[in-house]
Amino acid sequence: MLIVFTGNGKGKTTAALGCAIRSLGHSKRVLMIQFIKSGEISGEQKFLKKFQSASWRSKFQIIPAGKGFVKILGDKLSFSVHKKAAQDALKLAQKSILGKKWDLIILDEINVAVNLKLIKARDVLKIVKSAYADIILTGRSAPKIFIQKADLVTEMQEIKHPFKKGQMAKKGIEF
Amino acid sequence: MLIVFTGNGKGKTTAALGCAIRSLGHSKRVLMIQFIKSGEISGEQKFLKKFQSASWRSKFQIIPAGKGFVKILGDKLSFSVHKKAAQDALKLAQKSILGKKWDLIILDEINVAVNLKLIKARDVLKIVKSAYADIILTGRSAPKIFIQKADLVTEMQEIKHPFKKGQMAKKGIEF
Repeated sequence: MLIVFTGNGKGKTTAALGCAIRSLGHSKRVLMIQFIKSGEISGEQKFLKKFQSASWRSKFQIIPAGKGFVKILGDKLSFSVHKKAAQDALKLAQKSILGKKWDLIILDEINVAVNLKLIKARDVLKIVKSAYADIILTGRSAPKIFIQKADLVTEMQEIKHPFKKGQMAKKGIEF
Repeated sequence: MLIVFTGNGKGKTTAALGCAIRSLGHSKRVLMIQFIKSGEISGEQKFLKKFQSASWRSKFQIIPAGKGFVKILGDKLSFSVHKKAAQDALKLAQKSILGKKWDLIILDEINVAVNLKLIKARDVLKIVKSAYADIILTGRSAPKIFIQKADLVTEMQEIKHPFKKGQMAKKGIEF
């Protein structure tokens, strides 16, 4: 099953995380590869560090494979560095799909990586189309071809966001 | 902060669950009160049963306070039974907010409970408006007044759903 969470609203990666939790509940194994995030500051990574016991370390992994935001928020890396990271993340996705260890693979912010031309939509589809695992693709402005090929697509549409009123991103909610 | 996840698409409760995970990562305490769900079959409840260790049992709780789907899928309970359950769930929400133990309180499917006239929108607002905790209200067709009063609103819009092609709800993704 190919799932796309897209749109400009809050809730895409968070919904994928929710699917991860449910899948774990149903004894499935979940891998999340993050195409943009790099660091360790996100709540989901902190959650794993804090609470993940040996018994379920092999069942849920989050791999931050990106190099951070591209071209915004003080990004000083060259485009080729970001591109290399995204290409490597895609290779990891391919390997993970072929390995058949995981029941759910979340390719987080991969839509953004495609839009930034770090990777190609058709390369992504080639990799995910024959996947044994369920695949979730997240990120705003999903390529049309992803939406055409997906089984389930939700657009998270922003109706209201406190950023617009000048509030800062909130811990636990936004990251 | 008052957050609403609404719309007809997949991802409302799941996004709230994702926020729960992130909040736990940031050392916050999370309570989810489910206004419609009753049983133990959902992935999130199974997740807690399986993996929650004593060290974080006091940090994350999910309370299924509903009586199951109302008027559909073989529901044989009288309206008053559902109403009593929703009213009790709202009382629990009030108590939990006043107790100030929780940093994030998710009132799951509460929008649906209001639409079914099990509880009143204005009673919900009275309770959440002075909350110390962040509050997330989920469920399709959120009452307009919730959207007006909220700080952050995302509409999860269904673009494509496999139910429409006759597929059954999928474990880990849908529940």
